[in-house]
Amino acid sequence: MVNSERQGIMMPRTTTARGDAIAAAADLFRRQGYAATGLETILAASGAPKGSFYHHFPGGKEDLAVEAVRLGGRQIAERLEHAAAVTATAGALVTAAAAAQAADLRESGYELGCPVATVTLELAGRSDEVAGASQSAFDCWAESLAGKLRAAGRTDAEAARLARWAIANLEGALLLARAARDASIVTEAAEITARVLDEGTAPRDQ
Amino acid sequence: MVNSERQGIMMPRTTTARGDAIAAAADLFRRQGYAATGLETILAASGAPKGSFYHHFPGGKEDLAVEAVRLGGRQIAERLEHAAAVTATAGALVTAAAAAQAADLRESGYELGCPVATVTLELAGRSDEVAGASQSAFDCWAESLAGKLRAAGRTDAEAARLARWAIANLEGALLLARAARDASIVTEAAEITARVLDEGTAPRDQ
Repeated sequence: MVNSERQGIMMPRTTTARGDAIAAAADLFRRQGYAATGLETILAASGAPKGSFYHHFPGGKEDLAVEAVRLGGRQIAERLEHAAAVTATAGALVTAAAAAQAADLRESGYELGCPVATVTLELAGRSDEVAGASQSAFDCWAESLAGKLRAAGRTDAEAARLARWAIANLEGALLLARAARDASIVTEAAEITARVLDEGTAPRDQ
Repeated sequence: MVNSERQGIMMPRTTTARGDAIAAAADLFRRQGYAATGLETILAASGAPKGSFYHHFPGGKEDLAVEAVRLGGRQIAERLEHAAAVTATAGALVTAAAAAQAADLRESGYELGCPVATVTLELAGRSDEVAGASQSAFDCWAESLAGKLRAAGRTDAEAARLARWAIANLEGALLLARAARDASIVTEAAEITARVLDEGTAPRDQ
């Protein structure tokens, strides 16, 4: 059987329709959650025809949740990679990442928090695929930080543990910032985390 | 006009019906999110008659979201107050809170994470009431920790900042733990946070 997606002329259009649906879903899930977002809304936002939806996503809407988490994971990973290239330490990388996330929050009227967290909390309890995609995203982000920590002399185990802890802090700060509608929660939390990562001490009386 | 809720004999039943609906909604929202949980499911779980629902919750299902966040906020606040009474330091309090949350995760097959986070991420962007209830819950939890930090000689501002940072860390760790289905993420993150709060230093090579 020939898969039409693999036939030259069809590929760009098909790839775009699939990618457009994922991008539209990811944006909507990030702002308002998975369950609140109907398939019709996603299709309308993406401009994709309904007829091809189950061709691209045989598992239905849950496939979109997995792909949205993967997309969000890659977007933040790319942001971290770019920041890692121009920062010297793990703390500086955390500070840069927090500043970018805080800007997303402010510029979106506090709608754009973490692109992975909401779908994870909604679906991780009942979808192994979503839980796995979310775990991969968090692990990937932590690895960016762990590289900096190893370069600063931390052991592999210590770097992994501290990196995951720092990602957890950033995630939690994004949650608190959405509730308070105050992005400074993210940058202030990152300031403390950065100091701990780089200097091994918590700040006092700044 | 006499409110039937205030008439002796009616009060217990009415109060119970409202409280039962809130408790059932809070449990369902915590496991699977707000939008995924239909009103019929909540009423079936609580045993409350549908007829009185809009009497108790004139704002409809969104009222339940606010009340569920308030209930979750109080439950964790009580847990923190009890733990604060038997722990000496902020770090010990974080460790105790993390152990309790990790136990909730494990015992529920990773369905019972933070009782506030999921609804917050789903609704904070479009409901001032939910955002406010979530912010109050996070602030209340942080205040338990801040009290310990002030008792240990931190300034008010420093205690408030570190306490919020520690709550953010616990929240993020609960999120990562649900994705990985590994509650040790919560206890390990708390170990680092506790050390920073109590000793002012990050652990090395434990």
